[in-house]
Amino acid sequence: MDRKWVYFFNEISEVEKYVKGKWDDVKGMLGGKGANLAEMTRIGVPVPPGFTITSEACNTYLSSGEDFPDGMWEQVLKGIKGIEDKSGKKFGDPENPLLVSCRSGAKFSMPGMMDTVLDIGLNDKTAPGMVKLTSNERFVYDSYRRLVQMFGNVVMGVPDELFEEKINEFRIKTGTKIDADFNAKNWKDITKEFKTIIQIQTGSDFPMDPYKQLKMATEAVFKSWNGKRAVDYRNAASISHNLGTAVNIVTMVFGNLGNDCATGVALSRNGSTGENRIEGDYLINAQGEDVVAGTRQTNDISKLKEDMPEAYADFDKIIHKLEKHYKEMQDVEFTIENKKLWMLQTRDGKRTARAAVRIAIEMAEEGLISKEEAVLRITPDNVDSFLHPQFDSNSKAEAKATGSMIAMGLNVSPGAGVGVVAFDADLAESWAKKDGRQVIMVRPETKPDDIHGMLAANGILTSRGGRTSHAALVARQFGKPAVVGVTDIKIDLNKRQMSINGDIIKEGDWISIDGSAGEVYNCKLKTNIPDFMDTWLIKLLSWADEFRRLGIWTNADTPEDAKRARSYGAEGIGLCRTEHMFFEPKRLPFLNKMIMTDLAVERRDALDALLPFQRDDFIGLFKSMNGLPVITRLIDPPLHEFLPNNVDLLHDLTDLKIKLQHAVSLQDFDTILQQIKNKEKILARVDKLHESNPMLGLRGVRLGIQIPELTTMQVRAVFEAACIVKKEGVDVHPEIMIPLTSHFNELKTQRKALETEAKKVMKEQGIEIDYKFGTMIEVPRAALTADQLAEYASFISFGTNDLTQTTFGISRDDAESGFLINYLTKNILTENPFATIDIDGVGKLMEIAVKKAKKVKPDIECGICGEHAGDPKSIEFCHYLGLDYVSCSPFRIPVARLAAAHAALKDKKG
Amino acid sequence: MDRKWVYFFNEISEVEKYVKGKWDDVKGMLGGKGANLAEMTRIGVPVPPGFTITSEACNTYLSSGEDFPDGMWEQVLKGIKGIEDKSGKKFGDPENPLLVSCRSGAKFSMPGMMDTVLDIGLNDKTAPGMVKLTSNERFVYDSYRRLVQMFGNVVMGVPDELFEEKINEFRIKTGTKIDADFNAKNWKDITKEFKTIIQIQTGSDFPMDPYKQLKMATEAVFKSWNGKRAVDYRNAASISHNLGTAVNIVTMVFGNLGNDCATGVALSRNGSTGENRIEGDYLINAQGEDVVAGTRQTNDISKLKEDMPEAYADFDKIIHKLEKHYKEMQDVEFTIENKKLWMLQTRDGKRTARAAVRIAIEMAEEGLISKEEAVLRITPDNVDSFLHPQFDSNSKAEAKATGSMIAMGLNVSPGAGVGVVAFDADLAESWAKKDGRQVIMVRPETKPDDIHGMLAANGILTSRGGRTSHAALVARQFGKPAVVGVTDIKIDLNKRQMSINGDIIKEGDWISIDGSAGEVYNCKLKTNIPDFMDTWLIKLLSWADEFRRLGIWTNADTPEDAKRARSYGAEGIGLCRTEHMFFEPKRLPFLNKMIMTDLAVERRDALDALLPFQRDDFIGLFKSMNGLPVITRLIDPPLHEFLPNNVDLLHDLTDLKIKLQHAVSLQDFDTILQQIKNKEKILARVDKLHESNPMLGLRGVRLGIQIPELTTMQVRAVFEAACIVKKEGVDVHPEIMIPLTSHFNELKTQRKALETEAKKVMKEQGIEIDYKFGTMIEVPRAALTADQLAEYASFISFGTNDLTQTTFGISRDDAESGFLINYLTKNILTENPFATIDIDGVGKLMEIAVKKAKKVKPDIECGICGEHAGDPKSIEFCHYLGLDYVSCSPFRIPVARLAAAHAALKDKKG
Repeated sequence: MDRKWVYFFNEISEVEKYVKGKWDDVKGMLGGKGANLAEMTRIGVPVPPGFTITSEACNTYLSSGEDFPDGMWEQVLKGIKGIEDKSGKKFGDPENPLLVSCRSGAKFSMPGMMDTVLDIGLNDKTAPGMVKLTSNERFVYDSYRRLVQMFGNVVMGVPDELFEEKINEFRIKTGTKIDADFNAKNWKDITKEFKTIIQIQTGSDFPMDPYKQLKMATEAVFKSWNGKRAVDYRNAASISHNLGTAVNIVTMVFGNLGNDCATGVALSRNGSTGENRIEGDYLINAQGEDVVAGTRQTNDISKLKEDMPEAYADFDKIIHKLEKHYKEMQDVEFTIENKKLWMLQTRDGKRTARAAVRIAIEMAEEGLISKEEAVLRITPDNVDSFLHPQFDSNSKAEAKATGSMIAMGLNVSPGAGVGVVAFDADLAESWAKKDGRQVIMVRPETKPDDIHGMLAANGILTSRGGRTSHAALVARQFGKPAVVGVTDIKIDLNKRQMSINGDIIKEGDWISIDGSAGEVYNCKLKTNIPDFMDTWLIKLLSWADEFRRLGIWTNADTPEDAKRARSYGAEGIGLCRTEHMFFEPKRLPFLNKMIMTDLAVERRDALDALLPFQRDDFIGLFKSMNGLPVITRLIDPPLHEFLPNNVDLLHDLTDLKIKLQHAVSLQDFDTILQQIKNKEKILARVDKLHESNPMLGLRGVRLGIQIPELTTMQVRAVFEAACIVKKEGVDVHPEIMIPLTSHFNELKTQRKALETEAKKVMKEQGIEIDYKFGTMIEVPRAALTADQLAEYASFISFGTNDLTQTTFGISRDDAESGFLINYLTKNILTENPFATIDIDGVGKLMEIAVKKAKKVKPDIECGICGEHAGDPKSIEFCHYLGLDYVSCSPFRIPVARLAAAHAALKDKKG
Repeated sequence: MDRKWVYFFNEISEVEKYVKGKWDDVKGMLGGKGANLAEMTRIGVPVPPGFTITSEACNTYLSSGEDFPDGMWEQVLKGIKGIEDKSGKKFGDPENPLLVSCRSGAKFSMPGMMDTVLDIGLNDKTAPGMVKLTSNERFVYDSYRRLVQMFGNVVMGVPDELFEEKINEFRIKTGTKIDADFNAKNWKDITKEFKTIIQIQTGSDFPMDPYKQLKMATEAVFKSWNGKRAVDYRNAASISHNLGTAVNIVTMVFGNLGNDCATGVALSRNGSTGENRIEGDYLINAQGEDVVAGTRQTNDISKLKEDMPEAYADFDKIIHKLEKHYKEMQDVEFTIENKKLWMLQTRDGKRTARAAVRIAIEMAEEGLISKEEAVLRITPDNVDSFLHPQFDSNSKAEAKATGSMIAMGLNVSPGAGVGVVAFDADLAESWAKKDGRQVIMVRPETKPDDIHGMLAANGILTSRGGRTSHAALVARQFGKPAVVGVTDIKIDLNKRQMSINGDIIKEGDWISIDGSAGEVYNCKLKTNIPDFMDTWLIKLLSWADEFRRLGIWTNADTPEDAKRARSYGAEGIGLCRTEHMFFEPKRLPFLNKMIMTDLAVERRDALDALLPFQRDDFIGLFKSMNGLPVITRLIDPPLHEFLPNNVDLLHDLTDLKIKLQHAVSLQDFDTILQQIKNKEKILARVDKLHESNPMLGLRGVRLGIQIPELTTMQVRAVFEAACIVKKEGVDVHPEIMIPLTSHFNELKTQRKALETEAKKVMKEQGIEIDYKFGTMIEVPRAALTADQLAEYASFISFGTNDLTQTTFGISRDDAESGFLINYLTKNILTENPFATIDIDGVGKLMEIAVKKAKKVKPDIECGICGEHAGDPKSIEFCHYLGLDYVSCSPFRIPVARLAAAHAALKDKKG
């Protein structure tokens, strides 16, 4: 038997058998549209008769040098026969002609990128037959000229402008303002002229033979897979080039045959709010494109109930049936032809994050899906979008209604950006930094040299580039809203302006870009910071909590942070950076003194002065986290970070020395000289503390070993605070974390010294505290020797930022504004390892560490407190590693709760 | 049966049975001296009768609160009985008295640190008996007063000064110049006075009972194990405190009973040259201490043949017998008493490195030991010492003869250091750097703040501290000769002088220190750079080559280096650092131009100009290494290293700006302004290239990816050179090494680009070259993903310096002059990981890498080219890892050849 290239819509079970049952593969064979048409047919939803030519046929056609595969055309002919039987019409029959559409339909939606030909079957003989059948001559000849125009352009390659010019000519000739005013005769004449255009342009006639029409249209759709537009789109959207497209041949049905006809689109639930009510628009006696084009005022779907009660009842039943069948909110197209309802398409409906959350919850509560499924349906990005400023929906709707939405591009980095246009990075930076203006940087494409401008801007807009372009990567990297690849924009850098579909926007004009939707507006839209604590989201996250195994802790340095984090669901503090406590104006002088002195007694005095400040901080933290663990990391950064940098000092000295040349009095001279001496003293200390690679220098535990009184003071502050709050009835669980350990002896030494101090404080205060001592794992050696460390640590916590720096040998500060972007653009790295854990390298070390540590101490507490702890992919990895918790910034907690649940649910599924 | 605490010299097999046969444990029980006395007795060498009280007895005594263990004293009494039987003399018998010595003897030699009492058994009754027996009254009463003096001091705790004062008194009273002029009567009187001193000082009499003498002496020796001197010594020399000392009770024999008596010391071979001829000194009618003290002119041992032919024949036979028995060059003490030869001690002889090599080879050639054993006997330090300047042996001998050797200390860091004394680090640095003087820095002890002085000095001398003191660690670290813990030195920092045993040395005076021997001289000794290519060493290394499995390659950047390395035995170049080729004055301007320009065309021009230079370098290298592989590492350091640093530029700018204020003419003003502009331009580029952690920045393969034409030029230079020399008949094997890879995609991208260039060159030149492409493993991620890298690498080479930096998260430049020394001093790290591979961390990564790489590509070439490749311990580890080669600096090649052989031989032994 010949290979099967063609499937009737009612043959979906055969496809399933062929691909062994996977829906995804069914979609691969039949395309998304074809698969859904077949699925609707199977469950008894009225779909116009038709069949699908598989994407395999397309691929075979394209790879064979554009020959139909053996047997395909014969199967298509059988297909047409089948449709004829079902519809009672006949292809090419002048009396009762069958018209079909020939539509592309790939596995993944590529809106507008591929070709479609409608009304196939019309010719000089069948047109009059159609007129008889429909009693609507104008409709028939309009349809006929559409076929010729579309066919001429899509299939035969005639530029569409030629056809449009011809229509214009007729408009002038007949004094007609809009196309709708052409009568049947006009369209008939135009059609004739179109045929002549085709003859002149191609040397061939428009084919009268319906089968020739169909054959040529099918080939054209196949070929359109490799059309430039389609290839560019796939490159930008990261869709594989070897999928091919299926072709759907469907009986034409018409919503514009009279007042018992209609056409419309609808969502089974509200796409903005998620409310469980059908949302949609329709038009009586119209064609599908009329609804979408916005040229006529559409009716709300609820009115259809009054206009066509029976059809509406059918529709209502069907759309709910589809939702129930797909267990998803559906986006459908339908046509009513002479009272008969036909469903032309169904697919999962697009929705806002807010709607997605409500729909998932309500569907679970309706029993349509399980709680697990509801949780799995919400992506971390959905939750994330609750945290970004969004455009005010009224402001946006108004802008759309007034035509202020001027272009669409790729939505590569979410968020709402508003600002004045700046066409180069220097200007963007200068306007933003010096003039305090809000800026959107607009470029044909961006380069590494543009980064300073991108960082200064509120958003980035480019006319070229795809999802992995430089602009997209940088924007995502730095959380800037961005829309890229907006091909409609023409930038004229000489005139300092751009034109978008005829609109001129000058440098300095306001625009708004929606990085989540890919939209560009020529106005200043209002933005909202959405209410993060949305009721539906709270519910969803509480469900997520039921499934996750990972604890969600937070990084917080102040009682305020801690409170906020706790309100978002934090179950502990995984990282309190004590050095942040030193940066306050009242405290910094003492720290400076400690650093500047060579005298032990002065150093001790300075530390004694700092102690009460730190103790108060901890008191606040412990109270906020009553009942939960609080991990305090001892001072980590190199001491020179607390002093001015040497280049600034040198500049100051230069200025002072020049000033000294111009001293006007002896007193003036003395004053300046004194200033110079002071600066030089500081500079001398800065030079002494200077390190060529401070990231790998005297910091972390090394500081504690070098200046023991510094960390001892910190531990005293923690334990004094703990004792004080415990006496007040607070349930307190301090954990002391030693940073940057690379050798167990560091831990052994420091722990001994610090635990001694802790015990001393508890004895002084006469109270016992439940505490832990542990270490960060931030350098490869710590991971590789975690078994040795575990002997002296009650917990380990991965500092994956430093661990990534040392594992790769990459300094983040330098690389992220440097070669790392180049690496990502060139695909040398597919992900920024500082955003998502590098599983092969850093992840491997984490795995080794957890395994080794647990071997020695099975109940050792393991966590992560780097930025990765807020990244969903990394959270999934941490789940698989068997960590006890992830500790992220307060704003990432909701995302982390969801991601942790996803990880657990995926793990359960296996 | 009672436990056995006492063993006769002829009972060694019982000891062996008790400790299960291990010689090391026999030495532990009997001490080194006792074990060798027993061993000599076993093989029939004449040893005065005696026995050993074990170190176990000592330990039991010390731990029990100073009680002899049960049964010990009874066994000692039996021992005395045994000696009496053998010697025919009787302890305490006035007619025929037995005299014995009571000598300490621990497992490890602690010269002069512990106590000994001679002539036990003499008293007022036995002395006259001895006079009768020896007919030498003066000798007997001299011996008697020695016993009383030694006993009084060592056993009864009377300060020796009191005895010496008394002798002085007698000298004045009798008008005697030197002790030798005292007659029997004088000594008799002095002895009497000594007894009075003891009575007054201690309230007790000098014991007349020989058994009481013996008991008290034994206890004193036991206690001396915990004496301050001994404890300090053990701390400094890293000897365990719980070994205890054995006590040897030996029949006294006398070399000073007449002209048929003699005493001497000898080595079985020459300790300086290794020549196979007995070397030694003796005196007729003298005591052992007379030979050592240097107060009388000794005779060369060869003269004994004439003086006492029979005794010499015996001696010659015995010393060779001992050497054959121990299979080692022996250092012996002997006494001839009335023509009868007695051996008093034997031990392995000390020797210079040069002698060690010759002796090992000749012993192997004599069949005494195997070739393997000969190779194993030479330590890497021995070979290393061939590379350090040494003191000229004549100069040293002369200095010793004239009393210029003024003190001894711990030999903690080898080499010869000559210079003027500087008592603080700042002065040391200033004299050395500013005045170009040679300096020895002398301190009570050193601190981290002293490092700049230590680095500037030629050597370091301290009065305190042991083998792991700060001074010792830093000195070894930086290869500076050092002698520490010279307790005889009293430093007076106020007077800027030191006194050593009464000698005053002022700041600025010349001294010399021998870090290999621990000696201090108050003069300027001559130094030699020894002939490294010593014939014996060459032979030894050729033997080593027979056993080693590891290849020994070298790091060389110039043809000269390559030639030298090849002459030392290099089998390939494992690392040619191409950037070193850029630093030459003729080339640097082009490189600067390449860095300073933003124009691609200027960059290409600059690179084109550099190409011929690099090509010529490679031509030279390839010719030098004809037939051997040459690994070229592409440019590695960050580009800003080729430009001035920003602080220098800022200083220059300050100067120029101040100069501008004082410009005397418009022309002057313009000139300075132009200079300022130029500097500012350079500064701008330096700032642009600035990285906060350059070690982790834009360098290595990242440079090649960022500026592809740079590495392409280098590969072109390599391949053009290879083609040119191959046409001239040179057998050339270039290997291109890509540095700092962290991800396989870097390698994939660069290799593709570079291999394309290589093939292009070979096509242009019409010649095929046998080449390899590979990568360094310098960051943990590369090690962890070596399997992925191996897909694109024909070889891997560990850069363990960077790998250590990234694995520990330590910047070597910063740490080695900073906290790392602190870590080593505090024993947080036991070894500097930049000197010896850290096996638990870095080593673990290397193991993972080799395993993973070989899994993918079993024949992948694996090597190491960091500094560790010249370190013996690290070489041993590389052997076990199964690396193909180690590549070290040319001067380390001999050491590496030996160390590789040691590793292989140890591996074979298992």
